[in-house]
Amino acid sequence: MLIIGENISVVSKVVGSAIKERNAEPIIKLAKEQKEAGADYVDVNIGPATKNGEELMQWIVKSIQAEVDVPLALDTKNISAIEAGLKVHKGTAMINSVTGDKDKLDILMPMAKKYNSKIVGIALTEKGVPPDVDSRVEIVMNIVNSALEHDVPMENLYLDPVVLPVAVLQEQVHNCIKALKIFKELKELMALPDEPKTIVGLSNVSQSSPPELKSLLNRTYLIMLLSLGLDSAIIDPLDRELMNAIKTFDILTNKILYAHSYLD
Amino acid sequence: MLIIGENISVVSKVVGSAIKERNAEPIIKLAKEQKEAGADYVDVNIGPATKNGEELMQWIVKSIQAEVDVPLALDTKNISAIEAGLKVHKGTAMINSVTGDKDKLDILMPMAKKYNSKIVGIALTEKGVPPDVDSRVEIVMNIVNSALEHDVPMENLYLDPVVLPVAVLQEQVHNCIKALKIFKELKELMALPDEPKTIVGLSNVSQSSPPELKSLLNRTYLIMLLSLGLDSAIIDPLDRELMNAIKTFDILTNKILYAHSYLD
Repeated sequence: MLIIGENISVVSKVVGSAIKERNAEPIIKLAKEQKEAGADYVDVNIGPATKNGEELMQWIVKSIQAEVDVPLALDTKNISAIEAGLKVHKGTAMINSVTGDKDKLDILMPMAKKYNSKIVGIALTEKGVPPDVDSRVEIVMNIVNSALEHDVPMENLYLDPVVLPVAVLQEQVHNCIKALKIFKELKELMALPDEPKTIVGLSNVSQSSPPELKSLLNRTYLIMLLSLGLDSAIIDPLDRELMNAIKTFDILTNKILYAHSYLD
Repeated sequence: MLIIGENISVVSKVVGSAIKERNAEPIIKLAKEQKEAGADYVDVNIGPATKNGEELMQWIVKSIQAEVDVPLALDTKNISAIEAGLKVHKGTAMINSVTGDKDKLDILMPMAKKYNSKIVGIALTEKGVPPDVDSRVEIVMNIVNSALEHDVPMENLYLDPVVLPVAVLQEQVHNCIKALKIFKELKELMALPDEPKTIVGLSNVSQSSPPELKSLLNRTYLIMLLSLGLDSAIIDPLDRELMNAIKTFDILTNKILYAHSYLD
């Protein structure tokens, strides 16, 4: 599975003030730690970034990649900041994420094609997350069609069924599982050339739950989703128990060789 | 899911000597503890029981059920000890387990019918566990056909894909998952009136692994199998982390209502 580290986010105090002060050090540290803990990608969430978004994204991408050899997932609603980031990014970037709105798709899919980047398509629109599974599937089918239209290869497309907090919207958490199962059948359902990938933003499931439950909820949900074929997740790679659960999953599915010391 | 407690087994020292001395107290204690921890059934494994098997099984069934209101899974290769146990058992017993050998099936299926008990059919024969998935499916199809022939309802039939130790036979652990997926399709494949249930003996997966890995391997494997539709498992209900993982699975699949205190 492709692991994307979630810890560089403007909502964190440390990152928020590092961004404000253009102090790269704490951000580089977080990128390094996540990579060392097993992240394949590092997410860079700069928020709405309505002011100086382009300059900010370029600064953060260059600062990290000057010190850490890791590809980044560019995460902001500011589309021109995304493109600014792609221009200076080394390696295969990821665009995180594009909703099922046609105006967004018409800009971001060609951008993913032009820069040969991965792109996350998420099963919601500007109107929000639809309450039923079928509507999520419909949105994602539009996203897949847009990718086909703009010649984005399926292997670069990551479909996100939308994880919601179990403490607030318990039924939606089960709906996300149901949606994922259908996403895994899209190749057949839509007669696609290849299977699009799947992805979730895992930690949402435990938002609003007490701290002592968070890791248990996250890792249990992840193992459930991996069992159904999930290809990738945005997670906290510094959560040791979560990473141990992933390693154990890989052992039990024969992906890595068992040794008594496999956790070390 | 149906939880069967595994802790009353002749291989345990405490149980072994309690059986030898016909001292019911430690056995009753184990039954009570397991029921209180959430077991729906309690497994009673008396080993080969070649001597006095009938008397032993009746003694143990009566001793437990006199003190604890719990149904039992009767576990021995001694077929007449099974029947002796069924004769005195209160409620719906479970026969654990019958291999795919025709001579065994021809005796135990009619017995399950006669006593209206649940019965576990396991994907192995006297020759052992077949190395490939297809052969496990073939054995289990024979078991299903025998159940149909002897009029055992599918809801009483539990099919076991055979869990083997990951430390010894890693590939077989993945094969068990693959077999389970096919077992879940048997209703359609065999045009059955109802879906047969599925079951595993979970702790086998961590046999020969060091103690500090056992619970992690067990609970990760169980969540994987539950995600694929597993109906029942023979487990250690006194493993708190395992039981917490099961509760969390039930929360995330909307089976029980979320509350911040759901683990208490």
